[in-house]
Amino acid sequence: MAKQLNIGMIGYGFMGRAHSNGYNRVANFFPDLEFKPVLKAACARNAEATKTFADTWGYQSTETDWRKLVERRDIDAVDICVPNNLHKEISLACAAAGKMILCEKPLAMSVAEGEEMCQAVEKAKVANTVWYNYRRIPAVTFAKQLIDQGKLGRIFHYRANFLQDWTISADLPQGGNGLWRLDAAAAGSGVTGDLLAHCIDTAIWLNGGVTNVTAMTETFIKERTHTATGKVEKVSIDDACAFLCRFNNGSLGLFESTRYARGHKALYTFEINGEHASIKWDLHDLHRLQWFDHRDVGNLRGWRSIHITDGDHPYMGKWWVPGLQIGYEHSFVHQVADFCESLAKGTPCGPTFRDALETQKVCDAVLGSAKTGQWTNV
Amino acid sequence: MAKQLNIGMIGYGFMGRAHSNGYNRVANFFPDLEFKPVLKAACARNAEATKTFADTWGYQSTETDWRKLVERRDIDAVDICVPNNLHKEISLACAAAGKMILCEKPLAMSVAEGEEMCQAVEKAKVANTVWYNYRRIPAVTFAKQLIDQGKLGRIFHYRANFLQDWTISADLPQGGNGLWRLDAAAAGSGVTGDLLAHCIDTAIWLNGGVTNVTAMTETFIKERTHTATGKVEKVSIDDACAFLCRFNNGSLGLFESTRYARGHKALYTFEINGEHASIKWDLHDLHRLQWFDHRDVGNLRGWRSIHITDGDHPYMGKWWVPGLQIGYEHSFVHQVADFCESLAKGTPCGPTFRDALETQKVCDAVLGSAKTGQWTNV
Amino acid sequence: MAKQLNIGMIGYGFMGRAHSNGYNRVANFFPDLEFKPVLKAACARNAEATKTFADTWGYQSTETDWRKLVERRDIDAVDICVPNNLHKEISLACAAAGKMILCEKPLAMSVAEGEEMCQAVEKAKVANTVWYNYRRIPAVTFAKQLIDQGKLGRIFHYRANFLQDWTISADLPQGGNGLWRLDAAAAGSGVTGDLLAHCIDTAIWLNGGVTNVTAMTETFIKERTHTATGKVEKVSIDDACAFLCRFNNGSLGLFESTRYARGHKALYTFEINGEHASIKWDLHDLHRLQWFDHRDVGNLRGWRSIHITDGDHPYMGKWWVPGLQIGYEHSFVHQVADFCESLAKGTPCGPTFRDALETQKVCDAVLGSAKTGQWTNV
Amino acid sequence: MAKQLNIGMIGYGFMGRAHSNGYNRVANFFPDLEFKPVLKAACARNAEATKTFADTWGYQSTETDWRKLVERRDIDAVDICVPNNLHKEISLACAAAGKMILCEKPLAMSVAEGEEMCQAVEKAKVANTVWYNYRRIPAVTFAKQLIDQGKLGRIFHYRANFLQDWTISADLPQGGNGLWRLDAAAAGSGVTGDLLAHCIDTAIWLNGGVTNVTAMTETFIKERTHTATGKVEKVSIDDACAFLCRFNNGSLGLFESTRYARGHKALYTFEINGEHASIKWDLHDLHRLQWFDHRDVGNLRGWRSIHITDGDHPYMGKWWVPGLQIGYEHSFVHQVADFCESLAKGTPCGPTFRDALETQKVCDAVLGSAKTGQWTNV
Repeated sequence: MAKQLNIGMIGYGFMGRAHSNGYNRVANFFPDLEFKPVLKAACARNAEATKTFADTWGYQSTETDWRKLVERRDIDAVDICVPNNLHKEISLACAAAGKMILCEKPLAMSVAEGEEMCQAVEKAKVANTVWYNYRRIPAVTFAKQLIDQGKLGRIFHYRANFLQDWTISADLPQGGNGLWRLDAAAAGSGVTGDLLAHCIDTAIWLNGGVTNVTAMTETFIKERTHTATGKVEKVSIDDACAFLCRFNNGSLGLFESTRYARGHKALYTFEINGEHASIKWDLHDLHRLQWFDHRDVGNLRGWRSIHITDGDHPYMGKWWVPGLQIGYEHSFVHQVADFCESLAKGTPCGPTFRDALETQKVCDAVLGSAKTGQWTNV
Repeated sequence: MAKQLNIGMIGYGFMGRAHSNGYNRVANFFPDLEFKPVLKAACARNAEATKTFADTWGYQSTETDWRKLVERRDIDAVDICVPNNLHKEISLACAAAGKMILCEKPLAMSVAEGEEMCQAVEKAKVANTVWYNYRRIPAVTFAKQLIDQGKLGRIFHYRANFLQDWTISADLPQGGNGLWRLDAAAAGSGVTGDLLAHCIDTAIWLNGGVTNVTAMTETFIKERTHTATGKVEKVSIDDACAFLCRFNNGSLGLFESTRYARGHKALYTFEINGEHASIKWDLHDLHRLQWFDHRDVGNLRGWRSIHITDGDHPYMGKWWVPGLQIGYEHSFVHQVADFCESLAKGTPCGPTFRDALETQKVCDAVLGSAKTGQWTNV
Repeated sequence: MAKQLNIGMIGYGFMGRAHSNGYNRVANFFPDLEFKPVLKAACARNAEATKTFADTWGYQSTETDWRKLVERRDIDAVDICVPNNLHKEISLACAAAGKMILCEKPLAMSVAEGEEMCQAVEKAKVANTVWYNYRRIPAVTFAKQLIDQGKLGRIFHYRANFLQDWTISADLPQGGNGLWRLDAAAAGSGVTGDLLAHCIDTAIWLNGGVTNVTAMTETFIKERTHTATGKVEKVSIDDACAFLCRFNNGSLGLFESTRYARGHKALYTFEINGEHASIKWDLHDLHRLQWFDHRDVGNLRGWRSIHITDGDHPYMGKWWVPGLQIGYEHSFVHQVADFCESLAKGTPCGPTFRDALETQKVCDAVLGSAKTGQWTNV
Repeated sequence: MAKQLNIGMIGYGFMGRAHSNGYNRVANFFPDLEFKPVLKAACARNAEATKTFADTWGYQSTETDWRKLVERRDIDAVDICVPNNLHKEISLACAAAGKMILCEKPLAMSVAEGEEMCQAVEKAKVANTVWYNYRRIPAVTFAKQLIDQGKLGRIFHYRANFLQDWTISADLPQGGNGLWRLDAAAAGSGVTGDLLAHCIDTAIWLNGGVTNVTAMTETFIKERTHTATGKVEKVSIDDACAFLCRFNNGSLGLFESTRYARGHKALYTFEINGEHASIKWDLHDLHRLQWFDHRDVGNLRGWRSIHITDGDHPYMGKWWVPGLQIGYEHSFVHQVADFCESLAKGTPCGPTFRDALETQKVCDAVLGSAKTGQWTNV
């Protein structure tokens, strides 16, 4: 009989749905886990909307004050799915209350905030993880395995993009529901924390730490109406950000993110070039991994498009049969499964707050370099 | 408050899981449906395995005799997920008991069986549908919309393949669990009923009825050990089947299916060439539709790779945000959603048994033509 | 010092240009050949146009009567680049005059004509070849090498398409310059001889002889203005043709060709599925070969896109450096080079007339089957 | 009757062949040009090799001293196909002798050298062009037309890569024939001048001037045997180079080049994101242009893969028929054709020396920034 892992969810937006789906699916596809998530309570300020959300996803109760949720005795773990400017305060309260935390990325508004959060969870010894979910797309997890097996040899290059095009219109306001991402007061930064943070988390996981960076940012649309004030206000986020870096292992990195790349909805791509082999992946065809192996017979070398749907690919033995692809949301199911497994084993479930702080450090260095124009150490 | 649609599931194989997932997911993503599936009972001969299946997927009870399940007063609809040779008998019993039926494809072992089943459900006036799930891959549904809007103009060509490679090894036995598909006694035919039936269902839906066919079949591995007897026995299914046909609308068709196409796991593809535009789709990248429109400016004409993840693509407004793909299993969620919606409206949910009988007629004509070597009317 | 191979060219259309380019280029890229083509004379009925053509391509003289050309003592080899209905007569004259022949495909209007031509060249012992140029696209030649090395193992399936869309408009006339291909009196057949013949030649070369076929043809536009008469006349060619076949090696074949596949300009594709490996190729990206090898490590299996531009790929050592692709026309340069090399060695340069007759036999069987509706032996 | 353009070629390496082919082909495919190149003389230090080269390509004579070639009265134009460290001296001599110059890229070893060369040719009023041949790949030329027509609107992003993998082995020596590219004394720089210069030339042509840059370079293999001395010597070139930049039009640029990207032979790619539309292109499939147009109907938007082989695509009316691709070498034929046409019209043939100097300025700024770690103005 599985042990219950009682979840309290704060927030009900896009990520609130994605995480809830993860909790709901995991027992169907990972039936052997020792822990099984139970959706105890959903919490947000709007009582009616919270009730609707709770009904749709099967939460047993609702709260409108996150402090009450954190204090509830029947909650084991709190899922923080609110704008970035609230991550720290809620995390500190959770740690104080001895709750496990599953926090949406990025970890914090700054390294300073993040450091405080890390110390809190470490002192409280509560399980913690950050939803850098792309680590658990099977193709990405498989890339990690290939690298760890040494199949690429020495790494020379790492490049990653996260390209979107949804904010090109100057008529789009800032602030408000989905649009808090355009408001630096709520989001901390623009594409750097929202998109590049994903690229950086994956990069550190796959290729190790970043030494130093040189960056540029741009805000193409300088003013937008703010939904809170109804007035045209200065846009304070970065619409686009690009940086060069050196990794600790001597490889070179190129990163770029923008919401002004017409034709790309959510095109997160990365490529790694090693001495013996190279890897490419992109989110628009997330069920494929591109693989080039120089050790193949010379005249038969070519980029292989591997359809990551076989039983011996990471996580895929849990799903359907070879050839049948899974989708975006499954990465969250996998993170829940791994969190449950880590609980049973008493091991951390990466990326922990401490892991995510490394990404935060790179983000801060990037934003700093973009201001000073200097190469900046991480 | 949603009305309950009490489901009794017979079978727990690959399709049993896929359908169960469909029932479980629908309320999360289609919260406004009037009917909501409730998993009342799962049924199969092996009591222990059935119990495990029921626990994993949340069925409230189990049965080991499908006749008992069919007779239960608390069951509204029966899902038939067993080998093809049992479809008729169970369907007739369900109709007699006034149960709705959701039957796995192909409908039956033959047109004669299928006709009997159609008459039974029509006489009993019970809602019925057949799980030709690929109609409800969003890209395929979108293709249907484009054709119905006349965007292709006169259709000249339709071609479809369903290519697999999992039976190439002569060591693979026939019969038994997943391998009943290699045993004609249980499956009726080989790739024709298992794979081509999907292609034919989609084709009829998109392009109308088939007039006549000329076909060939082949059994590459002539003998395999049978799991039931432990002896080497003649293989009676078709390993590969191809046919040419004419559609009622004057267009030409080419269909092929095999389990001996090395490199293809489950590559269902179709292409339609119309006077003004053409469409291509394949199951290995099911979230994309290829579109060519001759009405584009001449020097800018090209095949468009449409990433079917936007809110204005069929079903996709229910899922995530643009750029984030869904997977294979979602087609079953959509069919459940549409079945529930049809119930509320009192309309049929295609493909009905009668619709599926059209596919059966083509299959029978194809298998007949392969034997006689003659063009055969459907 | 290279020996001269004095060429007399009959015709100056699209193929006349392509062949002329082949003769002109070969010495630059294959400088070590013992024979070197010299463009002695170009011949066509229109004196002025012939003169222009000759000046452009460097022919030293012109003729307006092909019989005179054939009789010229300074001509070693005649290139027949005229509509199909003239191939036989000119070939017989060439053979009688002891000239080598490089004949545009298809060989003839019928097997009977082709047989007569074969006997003539064999009796006269003149070198002969037919311009099935796609054999010498490096990727296709490489496919041949892989098959001959046994890398695919037993072959199960062969499928090929040749799809175009240039005759969809009903306003297009038949007859006249480029449009003699729409006139059966000049072309013999429609897509069967023009396009499928290419597919069949490659197939026989790669996969051996065809045993029997079942076919269908269609003429979508039934009447077109004829440029010769100015009147609307019945269209007698096949606009589309598809057939199923069995090869002598037990594999199954599927072939289709049409000029009504919107979105495809000249999409010749083939795919071969073997026990161990599969191959795909298409003319729209002719410098790539798709390769799947089941002997690769399981979780790293995938279709490789091989960029056929390396020095160890067929012919490619003669061109540029890895990564730099060649184009359509190079296949003709290669055929000229191989013809010259064969001359030096005293060996046949395939496809010879006799080889091409095999393709003609399949074409005739296909057209026959389309009329009778019967499986037809080749 | 065409006027002769008498060419003197200095060098016989890879580029010597590519240019020679351009001169030889142009009259076949561009028969209406007023000027027609005549290969008067080839020049290089090795008399025997020069003779072989001249014989292969049809040069009428040879020289072993480039100064003699430059002085010959029967030479109209000199083609400089030697290592970069000789470009200036030969160019100055040509200008002094009143010869036109077609100079291989990059223009010079430095901006200072380049400026001197520009002044020389401008003072001498001799026609001059630099072989940045990728401008004349039809797909790239077409991209230029689309941008000039304003179809992209405001440009936000430009990114380009040139990735190779041929120098990964530490056993490869520096210096000598093809390997002078690894020797800074002959090449000036590594990938910056050899590969990035191409990317920069195209970028300036398509997107206007570059304002400032921040760059990094790396030499992965620090020492290699030098073919001249036989000793292991320090490698002084950049193996990889990446930079961020801002364009004068406000758009952001990302550029990267390396010879350590396993799996890429000569993958030059660029992408431009505009307000209304985006463009992608790569050299490995150079006959395609990827085009995304936001003005398409919403649910039918997708990247179009345009097969650049139609008569209304740049240059393509001169070649074959739709669907039949050309290759790498054709870019040189087009540059010769345009040079001849410019001569007839008395207009410059871009990129002129002055145009190429702009690319040199960016290269110098990039190499400078890589040393200082500072953003550097161009």
